[in-house]
Amino acid sequence: MMVHMPHRKPIEYAAASAEVRAVYDDIMTVRHTDWVNNFWKVLAHDPAALRRVWNDIKQVMAPGALDPLTKELVYVAVSVANGCRYCIASHTAGARRHGMSEAQLSELLAVVAMANQTNALASGLDVEVDARFQQA
Amino acid sequence: MMVHMPHRKPIEYAAASAEVRAVYDDIMTVRHTDWVNNFWKVLAHDPAALRRVWNDIKQVMAPGALDPLTKELVYVAVSVANGCRYCIASHTAGARRHGMSEAQLSELLAVVAMANQTNALASGLDVEVDARFQQA
Amino acid sequence: MMVHMPHRKPIEYAAASAEVRAVYDDIMTVRHTDWVNNFWKVLAHDPAALRRVWNDIKQVMAPGALDPLTKELVYVAVSVANGCRYCIASHTAGARRHGMSEAQLSELLAVVAMANQTNALASGLDVEVDARFQQA
Amino acid sequence: MMVHMPHRKPIEYAAASAEVRAVYDDIMTVRHTDWVNNFWKVLAHDPAALRRVWNDIKQVMAPGALDPLTKELVYVAVSVANGCRYCIASHTAGARRHGMSEAQLSELLAVVAMANQTNALASGLDVEVDARFQQA
Amino acid sequence: MMVHMPHRKPIEYAAASAEVRAVYDDIMTVRHTDWVNNFWKVLAHDPAALRRVWNDIKQVMAPGALDPLTKELVYVAVSVANGCRYCIASHTAGARRHGMSEAQLSELLAVVAMANQTNALASGLDVEVDARFQQA
Amino acid sequence: MMVHMPHRKPIEYAAASAEVRAVYDDIMTVRHTDWVNNFWKVLAHDPAALRRVWNDIKQVMAPGALDPLTKELVYVAVSVANGCRYCIASHTAGARRHGMSEAQLSELLAVVAMANQTNALASGLDVEVDARFQQA
Repeated sequence: MMVHMPHRKPIEYAAASAEVRAVYDDIMTVRHTDWVNNFWKVLAHDPAALRRVWNDIKQVMAPGALDPLTKELVYVAVSVANGCRYCIASHTAGARRHGMSEAQLSELLAVVAMANQTNALASGLDVEVDARFQQA
Repeated sequence: MMVHMPHRKPIEYAAASAEVRAVYDDIMTVRHTDWVNNFWKVLAHDPAALRRVWNDIKQVMAPGALDPLTKELVYVAVSVANGCRYCIASHTAGARRHGMSEAQLSELLAVVAMANQTNALASGLDVEVDARFQQA
Repeated sequence: MMVHMPHRKPIEYAAASAEVRAVYDDIMTVRHTDWVNNFWKVLAHDPAALRRVWNDIKQVMAPGALDPLTKELVYVAVSVANGCRYCIASHTAGARRHGMSEAQLSELLAVVAMANQTNALASGLDVEVDARFQQA
Repeated sequence: MMVHMPHRKPIEYAAASAEVRAVYDDIMTVRHTDWVNNFWKVLAHDPAALRRVWNDIKQVMAPGALDPLTKELVYVAVSVANGCRYCIASHTAGARRHGMSEAQLSELLAVVAMANQTNALASGLDVEVDARFQQA
Repeated sequence: MMVHMPHRKPIEYAAASAEVRAVYDDIMTVRHTDWVNNFWKVLAHDPAALRRVWNDIKQVMAPGALDPLTKELVYVAVSVANGCRYCIASHTAGARRHGMSEAQLSELLAVVAMANQTNALASGLDVEVDARFQQA
Repeated sequence: MMVHMPHRKPIEYAAASAEVRAVYDDIMTVRHTDWVNNFWKVLAHDPAALRRVWNDIKQVMAPGALDPLTKELVYVAVSVANGCRYCIASHTAGARRHGMSEAQLSELLAVVAMANQTNALASGLDVEVDARFQQA
């Protein structure tokens, strides 16, 4: 099966409005790159969404209490749990850019898989939450 | 609504078989604690599963290419994505035990929430995976 | 936390319309019981949905190429994967009524948990579907 | 990666049984079209399922308290949340047929993405349901 | 089973910082109410997240190409698909505030349930996306 | 859209280490086949994970209180609920190898689809768990 889904064409820099280019420029500046990935180019059909989601990502993924690599690892983990292929591909690339080794990727997937396994057991067995886990 | 689900009673140490006690002992030794949480006590109705899942968890969560705190953060992230209340409670406690601060928890949830947000956009817009993300 | 969600009150037999009673009667006849569970009593606020969903369930869960116990086991498995507490509770009861033993429940949950684990690995590693799995 | 999954071949009208053709005819009549999409042609290997699911869809998607466009928008939203590519493609087409504009699609995806984001925060923080939300 | 999860206490208006109060004030102004629900009061432990998520919600849920009721219906639909109880409770209340009738709620849930049903069939049967659904 | 995801190349038997070959040999022995599917060959980049997951699968899928076909049916059901294409493809093949007929596959998917439907209704309506379902 070859799937050609109905999708919006990416808007390239040359064809973008000033409003969209401003976001593309900021993406490239913040990420120290000369390249914008498809997610943003497709989202650009809705410039308000483009700006809002990019501003969110910039704030949430900035260095803070968690280091950038840990944030990318979590992003990959959630994307795997949600089954989003684009997101797995792009954030696996992002995590590698922040230094993720192949051994770390293997361990990450092992943890995600174990979480999926024990989540199923805890839900299926309806395990009562322990008193010790209940204080704020 | 007060929900009293049909569930298996936790098997306490005093009532456990030698086979089950051996796993409980190993849990307490590995975790440097004198306490076993309900997940294992409920799983203990199936001693083979108890041993298998504990051995998996012990191997997967052991120090390795990823540090233990990062592993617990990933575990919480996947549990949130899966909506498993027991797992969120127990692994949030686990992450705190490994040093997670409240600021780190806030950031973690922000990353999970953003991943959920952009996962939906990438799936809904069917964004094509970029060539640059495609080489192993 | 005690959660009292906004919910529609179950419509008891005595208070039900003739249209709703007809479905309740059919449920009790098909299931050889004198009792209707809350799912149907809440769905009864929308009599057309009550009839449609019951007719579907009656057709899908009837004896056929798969035996009734296998069908209940599959129902439990999907409900666990979806994290639906009511559905886990009611179909675990249904599976027990069709003869599920505690050993079978343990094995069922182990299979569900393993499926969740390997699903995560296959998605995260983006394993290519083998040629041998590709012919119809 | 080119994926050729093991799948049942669509059953074309010319090759269909009278029972299956009756459903195809009804689909084309209700939808004012001369075309049946693959979902139904693949489901047709199980004529009872074909009839049951089509009757459900016909009843549920018929004009009622919600207008048809709203119903299609909801269908797309759930399909995005479930990550079902076929369903996203076919119901995005359906929503367009009922008049969805590109601006409405953009807003729809933004709402789905925000729901995914706040769902993750509400679950991860285990926010207690407010008393005001609790009366029926 | 009574579940008392480990959770952050809601921050009431009287105890809130000026930064948090400014967001609470904006929530009450935009929603024409004198009340802030728990989601925001718990999120307030992270003032930057509080402001960001509220700004997102305000922008995304504002009147636009889709009317406010449709947006709330979509929000409920996704929350049901995700199984998030708080979100179902709060956005069902929100939809009622925007005029959702009980008949509309019934139809909404019927559409969500049908989408979940056909999503499973389309995924399980791996239905090929029709050529007609593939042009942008 | 042709998706070429970033993925690890399968490690063929000829190129595998002794440690990996030992697992491949065991897979072929247990399954009475001369062939190893891609899942294991990709997982083989992490020999510890390869051994652990295979040992789990071998134990969980072995004959026991549930017969092997029932276990494969449950595996397919969960994989459909999770939307994992590789897993649907490989375990549908596995179920056929254990004797699943096309009629059984049709019924299986009908049960999964109904579970997905009623799960959504039970969650959306927040149906209270019946007292009769609450004793262990």
